[in-house]
Amino acid sequence: MHVMVIGAAGMVGRKLLDKLAAEAGILGGDIEKLTLVDVIEPLAPAGFAGNCISKAADLADPGVAEQLITARPDVIFHLAAIVSGEAEADFEKGYRVNLDGTRAIFEAIRLESRKAPYRPRVIFASSIAVFGTPFPDKIGDEFFTTPLTSYGTQKAICELLLSDYSRRGFFDGIGIRLPTICIRPGKPNKAASGFFSNILREPLSGQEAVLPVDESVRHWFASPRAAVGFFIHAATLDLEKVGPRRNLSMPGLSALVGEEIEALKRVAGEKAVRLIRREPDPTIQKIVAGWATDFDATRAAKLGFKAETAFDEIIRAHIEDELGGKIPA
Amino acid sequence: MHVMVIGAAGMVGRKLLDKLAAEAGILGGDIEKLTLVDVIEPLAPAGFAGNCISKAADLADPGVAEQLITARPDVIFHLAAIVSGEAEADFEKGYRVNLDGTRAIFEAIRLESRKAPYRPRVIFASSIAVFGTPFPDKIGDEFFTTPLTSYGTQKAICELLLSDYSRRGFFDGIGIRLPTICIRPGKPNKAASGFFSNILREPLSGQEAVLPVDESVRHWFASPRAAVGFFIHAATLDLEKVGPRRNLSMPGLSALVGEEIEALKRVAGEKAVRLIRREPDPTIQKIVAGWATDFDATRAAKLGFKAETAFDEIIRAHIEDELGGKIPA
Repeated sequence: MHVMVIGAAGMVGRKLLDKLAAEAGILGGDIEKLTLVDVIEPLAPAGFAGNCISKAADLADPGVAEQLITARPDVIFHLAAIVSGEAEADFEKGYRVNLDGTRAIFEAIRLESRKAPYRPRVIFASSIAVFGTPFPDKIGDEFFTTPLTSYGTQKAICELLLSDYSRRGFFDGIGIRLPTICIRPGKPNKAASGFFSNILREPLSGQEAVLPVDESVRHWFASPRAAVGFFIHAATLDLEKVGPRRNLSMPGLSALVGEEIEALKRVAGEKAVRLIRREPDPTIQKIVAGWATDFDATRAAKLGFKAETAFDEIIRAHIEDELGGKIPA
Repeated sequence: MHVMVIGAAGMVGRKLLDKLAAEAGILGGDIEKLTLVDVIEPLAPAGFAGNCISKAADLADPGVAEQLITARPDVIFHLAAIVSGEAEADFEKGYRVNLDGTRAIFEAIRLESRKAPYRPRVIFASSIAVFGTPFPDKIGDEFFTTPLTSYGTQKAICELLLSDYSRRGFFDGIGIRLPTICIRPGKPNKAASGFFSNILREPLSGQEAVLPVDESVRHWFASPRAAVGFFIHAATLDLEKVGPRRNLSMPGLSALVGEEIEALKRVAGEKAVRLIRREPDPTIQKIVAGWATDFDATRAAKLGFKAETAFDEIIRAHIEDELGGKIPA
């Protein structure tokens, strides 16, 4: 089996690759070849016994997607995108990377399938940014996509393309709308959503973190481990069960910031909680107020997608996956 | 005021132009210039006193949209598309015309607006084909778009682009999802939906018509006159009232084929009804079974869009607009 990961240098991409390398049979057949693609040359995962090829490539450049697809990967994880803030700041770049780059892959597969039968599984990383306010407290599986960012627009368009290309039989596609990933490993970044992770990750390592919003803010979460699980499940799921509606809001955990903090206290004690510094930031508060807070992800749950059901689990997954199983003293 | 109609050679385009020519103040300012665009050179409407320019152009050809938009029309009606059947039969042509052609116009406006302030009103003809089965008996204003044709996919994508370009301030866009237009003037055609019009139009002219489905089939209708009204209203409506959700399912009339026939009887008598020949066609029955039958178009109705509320009105509009006000003896 030949697996291609596009966006292989990103956080979720790397974790997915680690999983594929560690459990080469996880997709139901032995993975003999891994092709990693990103705008910077991605690192090969440790411990992969098969053939691993890393490529630095810009999918929106003419001919790049065609060239990649001539190798006829059986499974393609497409996680590459520029993020919401950048797509909003640079309109042309956002459409070029997030829409034209994705369409180039889809087209390359279609054209390849016309040369000789070819129908790979395509797993596309979408986003809950396809939804825009006002929405119900719980966004259901049949709610319309009215994004309020260019990023969300690009994702919603790619979802439509994915469904149509799948319906026409060019590939077997499935779109995965990820919740906010928490706890993101690494350093605090400038993303408006960063604090959801910062207030847990930093105190778990004995560092201070800033909380710019009220504890009553509700949001929608899944761990990096759950995200990898979504992609693996999407790659192996019987798509007959999914039918023509190929884009799914993933299950997640709807929780208050206050519940994050209570879980931190249970897992790491009062000392960790004292490292959270409250610095209200009206700009961040306003951005966050426009975000979805809860989903009714019944369809995905019925199809076997699983996420955490309590913040304690999310924190423990972080401690196991990032901190070697224990909280630094 | 300079008004551009793209898709000006089509049935709705021509009726819209007749209205604009007859009532040059209808958009709230005098129309001094009309630019008509289509793949074949459109005919100028009779009786227009201003400057009228007709152009044969393919919008998806490089540079064509930019060239058109340098004239900076104040109002742009974009009605050009290849129809559902053709977009399904020719995948590449469908995406080229219905998606790339529309995106080329939107991009041309954006680039023109960067040269000097420019923000036209753009009225886009969308379709209820953005919806795919299964759907509720009445499709509401917040139901998701999961098209089951490439045509519907292309329309849904253009709706998303229209909203994003409007949100970014490049133009003031509004998308109009038309019901099935009935009674279509002209000759019977091969569209699967043709019979809805044929069984009224042909008997009204003393000709036989074929009914391939059962009288219990329900569908969603508006007259050509109502369609023109939607476009005119969309061109003049205060878009502040519409907000960021720029694509609207238009009001219409949900009616049974049997109700069409009853109305024909009331308006034109039993003699007309006897000209309908029942020839069940399983292929057409199957296609029609996948179509939407009713909408809850509350939003559009609140915004002042109006359609017929009884089939007698639809038939009378046809008699007035196409038959000189009376049924041929």
